[in-house]
Amino acid sequence: MAVYTHLSAEDLGALISHYDVGELVSAKGIAEGVSNSNWLIETTGKDGGGARYILTMYEFRIELADLPFFLGLLDLLAEKGCPVPATIHDRSGATHRMIINEEGDPKAVALIEFLPGVSIDHPEPAQARAVGHALAQLHLAARDYRERANQMGMSSWKELLDDCGAEGLARIDRELPGIIAQEMQFLADNWPTDLPRGVCHADLFPDNVLMLGDVVTGLIDFYFACTDFFAYDLAVTHAAWCFADHGRKFRPNVSKALLEGYESVLPLTDAERAAMPVLARGAAMRFVSTRAYDWLHTPADALVTRKDPMDFVRRMQFYAREGQAIFSAGA
Amino acid sequence: MAVYTHLSAEDLGALISHYDVGELVSAKGIAEGVSNSNWLIETTGKDGGGARYILTMYEFRIELADLPFFLGLLDLLAEKGCPVPATIHDRSGATHRMIINEEGDPKAVALIEFLPGVSIDHPEPAQARAVGHALAQLHLAARDYRERANQMGMSSWKELLDDCGAEGLARIDRELPGIIAQEMQFLADNWPTDLPRGVCHADLFPDNVLMLGDVVTGLIDFYFACTDFFAYDLAVTHAAWCFADHGRKFRPNVSKALLEGYESVLPLTDAERAAMPVLARGAAMRFVSTRAYDWLHTPADALVTRKDPMDFVRRMQFYAREGQAIFSAGA
Repeated sequence: MAVYTHLSAEDLGALISHYDVGELVSAKGIAEGVSNSNWLIETTGKDGGGARYILTMYEFRIELADLPFFLGLLDLLAEKGCPVPATIHDRSGATHRMIINEEGDPKAVALIEFLPGVSIDHPEPAQARAVGHALAQLHLAARDYRERANQMGMSSWKELLDDCGAEGLARIDRELPGIIAQEMQFLADNWPTDLPRGVCHADLFPDNVLMLGDVVTGLIDFYFACTDFFAYDLAVTHAAWCFADHGRKFRPNVSKALLEGYESVLPLTDAERAAMPVLARGAAMRFVSTRAYDWLHTPADALVTRKDPMDFVRRMQFYAREGQAIFSAGA
Repeated sequence: MAVYTHLSAEDLGALISHYDVGELVSAKGIAEGVSNSNWLIETTGKDGGGARYILTMYEFRIELADLPFFLGLLDLLAEKGCPVPATIHDRSGATHRMIINEEGDPKAVALIEFLPGVSIDHPEPAQARAVGHALAQLHLAARDYRERANQMGMSSWKELLDDCGAEGLARIDRELPGIIAQEMQFLADNWPTDLPRGVCHADLFPDNVLMLGDVVTGLIDFYFACTDFFAYDLAVTHAAWCFADHGRKFRPNVSKALLEGYESVLPLTDAERAAMPVLARGAAMRFVSTRAYDWLHTPADALVTRKDPMDFVRRMQFYAREGQAIFSAGA
């Protein structure tokens, strides 16, 4: 969470002049995004009434080739009434532009709508219900959108965990290598192959949802969006929203509300419902794998806060024990 | 430049409820400040029309005992029409409040006015003139404000440089220990003792000035403010604004405009003008000392960008050569 690149007011002013948004009034680098730099930009607005935008500079990880997928998706979803920030196109109609940073490297930037709302740390059931509802809306709205493979699917978990190695994993927790080997085998043997699929957010944690009270005002950060099972996306969201105290405490009322909210728009099929426990274990493993990798590759004294992989090991074990009961209950 | 503390939307909402500013609408951690965390906060406003504020949490360095000095100064300057953000008082009239962070530590927080404007990297003379003008206004407006010793004065340079040691300094540049020993001796022998004094900003770099075109919309970050020679504050500002290319290139037109802008409000006395070359060498040394200390105490691979002390060694040497000519010319 940092601003990796310095953009001068002069650079920003020049950039803004390519858009029909008025003159630059304010720009603050904001502490959001891990693989990009973001600025909250204020301009005089199209009509002089003032307007705000998020300017994102893509620093790492995201391939330029994927940007049209992400930015086109925002446009489609915004057009269909989903609470996502629309992309602001420049005067030539482009969703992103290239600029040269101080080091002389070309970087892609995009201007997107600023949305009000705050991210909730401790969701109430009514808020989880609204999030479930918004996720299902997203699944429906992007149904005919084009495909993008999930680059954070099972084969990537395996790669990351192999890279950690049993020794590395054991440094996190003595039991971890055994737990992971067994669980990865289980997932490989039981992963569903034929469920309804389409565009997934694939990372809908509370910090990627803006809310005002119980209303979802923004789903943001679509840079893991991909084509996968809808129910897997619901499982990721479930793992992200329904636990407290670092995965130690399951919150049944939040879980129930999230599932109800989702199913009020898009009821689960029998096959989806049956697959939810294994999908939830997979969703937990996805974050175990990236967190374990980052844990072992980030110095303990780095300014970046390392996220404890055990938070998601606990969820994974919880789903192995209780998943059947939670998800078969239905909504 | 980071947000050191996580504040949940729930924490922020609870905090905001102590102020007469309406309900929380948005909160973004912003990448400003080195010894504090800052959020750009939007609320529904006193009258429902929307309002923005900067919330600052004091993390390090600033002693709680000094906060009333800093925040009271903002109030005084804002009241006198200087372009500074006013402090928003809570319902009980307090300029700051204590909150408990996630680790259970009490931290002071203050809500201050949000001001439009952007920080300029490459000032034009007209912009430097406006900054000189604003600095002199500040000196006049706070004339009767109370005293606070300059904790970044000559004795602190000496402490920091002694801590670096000749060996450390030589690691930065082979010539540095000799340059510094000689210069510190010169400064000790020639530092003025009796010049007009009062409240100084003492850190008025371009990133602490917000501008819209040639208009100063905000002087910010007063956390080095202290009582010292006005002309020293002008010298700090001169060193901060009048060079390009890492101190290699002096910008005479910017210098002339800055001095003219200052003197249009508060003409220098003969004694001040005569002292400017040595004050400017001291101002450069102040930043050499902190940068050298930070350079040697920050790992090269840290996420924080280290600022090169040599940028200010070059300025110091420039002032030793040319200071007489630049400052005696007058405005």
